[in-house]
Amino acid sequence: MPAIQALVFDVFGTLVDWRNEIARESAPFLARHGRGDVDPIAFAEAWRACYQPSMEAVRSGARPYVRLDVLHRENLSTVLAQFGFDEASLDQDELAQLNRGWHRLAAWPDVVPALLRLKTRFILAPMSNGNLSMMVRLARHAGFPWDAVLGAELAGDYKPAAAVYRHGPQALDLPPEAVCLVAAHNSDLRAACAAGLSTAFVPRPTEYGPKQTKDFRAEEDWTVVAKDFEDLADQLLAR
Amino acid sequence: MPAIQALVFDVFGTLVDWRNEIARESAPFLARHGRGDVDPIAFAEAWRACYQPSMEAVRSGARPYVRLDVLHRENLSTVLAQFGFDEASLDQDELAQLNRGWHRLAAWPDVVPALLRLKTRFILAPMSNGNLSMMVRLARHAGFPWDAVLGAELAGDYKPAAAVYRHGPQALDLPPEAVCLVAAHNSDLRAACAAGLSTAFVPRPTEYGPKQTKDFRAEEDWTVVAKDFEDLADQLLAR
Repeated sequence: MPAIQALVFDVFGTLVDWRNEIARESAPFLARHGRGDVDPIAFAEAWRACYQPSMEAVRSGARPYVRLDVLHRENLSTVLAQFGFDEASLDQDELAQLNRGWHRLAAWPDVVPALLRLKTRFILAPMSNGNLSMMVRLARHAGFPWDAVLGAELAGDYKPAAAVYRHGPQALDLPPEAVCLVAAHNSDLRAACAAGLSTAFVPRPTEYGPKQTKDFRAEEDWTVVAKDFEDLADQLLAR
Repeated sequence: MPAIQALVFDVFGTLVDWRNEIARESAPFLARHGRGDVDPIAFAEAWRACYQPSMEAVRSGARPYVRLDVLHRENLSTVLAQFGFDEASLDQDELAQLNRGWHRLAAWPDVVPALLRLKTRFILAPMSNGNLSMMVRLARHAGFPWDAVLGAELAGDYKPAAAVYRHGPQALDLPPEAVCLVAAHNSDLRAACAAGLSTAFVPRPTEYGPKQTKDFRAEEDWTVVAKDFEDLADQLLAR
């Protein structure tokens, strides 16, 4: 079995706290429009709830690949309607700016110090459903020291489609087992494992706040099971 | 005209001194095989001389896209034959290791300090004919602080095909003029300009050693004409 040479990362939920961060991005918008009645956390959760169904249209082949930025913008229209906004009365530039909130999420505090340690030994790249330009801007905002951007856009499909996991090792010219997906979601790791990648689980028990129902612990014997990113770096650097 | 937001870079000749560096990589191979009669610089020049013809097969459509690592390996066979080696008697792993010399080239000394200054303000990426895994390993070796890897492999063609230049702004979700190609080759800048990109020329008058015949100076009114990378950073950061 080849040694792990590259680490690829799930981003939303694993590296960034999208729920609190999108709430923070949405709050000024809601306030500007006199919607103090809307909880920004509920707005963020509703926006994220559209995520899997919108990607499923691409995964199923019903729709050609479009970037996550495009899906997020469509989903924003859905969520605005759910909360009783009349989108026709809103400024398109303001909505585009709100949609770019997904490029401005801060990392969980354990992430960047661990990535900087891991960068000395491993190739690092996101393997996210986010598009390349989103990943670039998010990394510049959050301080992720990527060597390259991999993921959905380069593969032309969305996780958990096998093509996305297979593309990473192929692009890096490495055997699949030499590439390890780091994720807080057992389902993501299951799909990576099926594609031959090594796997590392780091729990994010507050990703969904009090409503979280799963992913409190590793559900399989993943290659690495870590308590947090500091522990992940300790274990990987000790191998 | 939109402000420049991203800088994309030609790599071989502009950021790295392939001629002296491939000579340095080739010298131990030549010595091991008792070929003190072969000048490592001549070996490097002969290897590089195969570069444009080998890409032309892809650009013309005669051959589907294959990575530059593959073309370099094929071209190595050609060069070995030119210098009278019997390839059948050589170890394949040794040749693969020699071929990976293209991943281990040091940067011209003005490059990395300038890139670190430019990174504070601009998105930085290679726009090279080198494949993604080559660009990742070269960046880790030379210290290039890329935000992403762009270039030939992502576009499925080789510069100066327009598809490679057009892909960069599209992937970064920027207007073409907001992306500036930095190169030491007027022909590269001409093709980038035709695709709508901004352009910056930095001369490398010793790239081809005493045999250099061109690219001593900017041949057109490029967006930026710099003396060296320090000057490039000064000019771009002052805009």
